Amino acid sequence: MDFKTEFKPYTIQPQKIEGRSFEIIDEEIGSHSYTAEQYPIVQRVIHSSADFELGKSLRFHLDAIQAGIHAIKTGKKIVTDIKMVSVGINKRRIEKFGCTIHEYITDEEVVKEARALNVTRSIIAMRKGIKEAEGGIFAIGNAPTALLELIRLIKQGAPKPGLIIGFPVGFVSATESKEELMKLDIPFITNKGRKGGSTVAVAAVNAIAIMAERVE
Amino acid sequence: MDFKTEFKPYTIQPQKIEGRSFEIIDEEIGSHSYTAEQYPIVQRVIHSSADFELGKSLRFHLDAIQAGIHAIKTGKKIVTDIKMVSVGINKRRIEKFGCTIHEYITDEEVVKEARALNVTRSIIAMRKGIKEAEGGIFAIGNAPTALLELIRLIKQGAPKPGLIIGFPVGFVSATESKEELMKLDIPFITNKGRKGGSTVAVAAVNAIAIMAERVE
Repeated sequence: MDFKTEFKPYTIQPQKIEGRSFEIIDEEIGSHSYTAEQYPIVQRVIHSSADFELGKSLRFHLDAIQAGIHAIKTGKKIVTDIKMVSVGINKRRIEKFGCTIHEYITDEEVVKEARALNVTRSIIAMRKGIKEAEGGIFAIGNAPTALLELIRLIKQGAPKPGLIIGFPVGFVSATESKEELMKLDIPFITNKGRKGGSTVAVAAVNAIAIMAERVE
Repeated sequence: MDFKTEFKPYTIQPQKIEGRSFEIIDEEIGSHSYTAEQYPIVQRVIHSSADFELGKSLRFHLDAIQAGIHAIKTGKKIVTDIKMVSVGINKRRIEKFGCTIHEYITDEEVVKEARALNVTRSIIAMRKGIKEAEGGIFAIGNAPTALLELIRLIKQGAPKPGLIIGFPVGFVSATESKEELMKLDIPFITNKGRKGGSTVAVAAVNAIAIMAERVE
């Protein structure tokens, strides 16, 4: 059987799906106090999760959006904690600004050092990232330990990221790591509670990249 | 400053975090009617999303777990719709059975054909997948169009997958595509409603791989 010849065209077009999805989100989100600048991030997080509770749990440092746009427009590095976040980021959108994506967790040097120090690779990966990506965007979608280490390094005077997108998910330390992030006076996007994850971190990075494209 | 020398050991160990997380899930999940065989999948989905509502929306074909374990133990292909799903699957766990992961969406032939036919790449990718992965596991974490195409091909008599893990997420067609999947008499794992996504699909595949490891 040749499936190619039996094609019945679908009426659903990806752009139309996205547009209609955003309309539904606008209709259903109800009251909120996000600014016009913050709302596109909330909207894209809800789009990627179909979860309004998660979307409305987002919290922004006042400078977060501008700092994120600036980091992208000036071609800064984007550092992630896991490959799922790295591959979800729309490369076409950020490459034209000169941005590159790095997850150091599989870096040979990092693997070696983690083994030698007997700590998780996500911790050592953050230590390498912070030295190599001053002013960049750190997008954490999985590991509370990565975010906690990043916070610790910043408190100790490490070179500052431009924006921290912190969405560890889970039952142990995730909520706490995000609460710690909210205490920092450094641009961040995060959320209250246990939910989060790589799709959320990806949605936030991609939403900011779209804004960077549109800003003069 | 040398961050390496300033290390304060964290007390959190990844295995302990996972164990404690599973305990919390057991404590908080409340009543449900999942079998002992299905529950580890539900548990891992909740672990990866911190979302009990999502976990409890899971639906299983009666043969799903056994079919999934069989597909892994016999080294069948795992076909995904997007790279985020592919990279989230624990390769070490499945490679020892001879399983390989394929997402045809970036396949040159697929890209070319999608352009020629003016349809989405995810549709053409499923057509290629179904021909090349009989008896394999199809893990869909994103595109309703991919799942709908897969269902259409199966109804037309295409070679049958061993298991379909269907978790499209979103506001347009996602729910409907999963309802269609539930009507098929073929092993599936899916959920009711809009939620889903690549982390959920990944959690389900990894949970089954762990079960395959443990089964004689």
